[in-house]
Amino acid sequence: MKNFEKIFSILCLSIPVAACAASAVKPNYDVQVSKYEAQKASIGAADKFTGQVLVDSNFKSDLEDGYSGAMVNFEAGARAAWHSHPRGQTLIVIEGEGRVQAKGKQAQVIKPGDVVWIPPNQVHWHGAAAEHSMSHIAIVEAEGGRATDWMQHVTDNEYAKAQ
Amino acid sequence: MKNFEKIFSILCLSIPVAACAASAVKPNYDVQVSKYEAQKASIGAADKFTGQVLVDSNFKSDLEDGYSGAMVNFEAGARAAWHSHPRGQTLIVIEGEGRVQAKGKQAQVIKPGDVVWIPPNQVHWHGAAAEHSMSHIAIVEAEGGRATDWMQHVTDNEYAKAQ
Repeated sequence: MKNFEKIFSILCLSIPVAACAASAVKPNYDVQVSKYEAQKASIGAADKFTGQVLVDSNFKSDLEDGYSGAMVNFEAGARAAWHSHPRGQTLIVIEGEGRVQAKGKQAQVIKPGDVVWIPPNQVHWHGAAAEHSMSHIAIVEAEGGRATDWMQHVTDNEYAKAQ
Repeated sequence: MKNFEKIFSILCLSIPVAACAASAVKPNYDVQVSKYEAQKASIGAADKFTGQVLVDSNFKSDLEDGYSGAMVNFEAGARAAWHSHPRGQTLIVIEGEGRVQAKGKQAQVIKPGDVVWIPPNQVHWHGAAAEHSMSHIAIVEAEGGRATDWMQHVTDNEYAKAQ
């Protein structure tokens, strides 16, 4: 999941997250396998992320306001902006080393196999460590179709204190 | 995630799945990191799985009948019994090579990055390839607290035809 150069060279290089989200598996009534090599990864939008972020392996429940999610791949130094989720978020770390920080709290180191629960409306950010990439599965449930409220970027100073 | 010998030697060797399920992250109102090394893996119960299966990185929404799931690690040759889910299931393959098969259909090969959607009430099984281990994240939503209906084992003959 970490081969950013390769992925960048073959997958929707200039397509924003919203457009690429259409590549999420659409539930239907046959078992459906969305092959990795046929997926279109999306690039984390510059107003929501700092650094190189690629999103793939999108998935979705077939319930209204059910779960949805993806694999989110952060290059070293990359991170989400401050944000919150009306119904919370689960992260399962798959590769590398990252950080998660709730507003006003110390950042925490996260590594493969760690599971993070971010409660509803908790302002926070997550991303890679400064010296290591990090990939995690992220899962949210929506509330009236809304799953995330985005805020300002994590500054270089805030990020440096989290290392 | 594949080091079964190590995991077996340190984690709840004789604790059934139901007891180990209590190690799932319990949502609360602080950001909560469940460290991998502090988790208690559970062993796939012999009436639900064939071969060595370990479950860790458990997670759960805080909504009633919201999503729940885990990382499921199948050793080579290991597989779930035939089963179905009242609200369907998502699998995200993380490592190795596996198979998924709907009743009456051909088995499909699944590899890292692949996303599988199994529709509600579709009888199916999933597991490792005969010669390779396989780890996937599995996500379900419950219906009245029930997420899975288990059936008979996948026979050696059925499994051989899926290779």
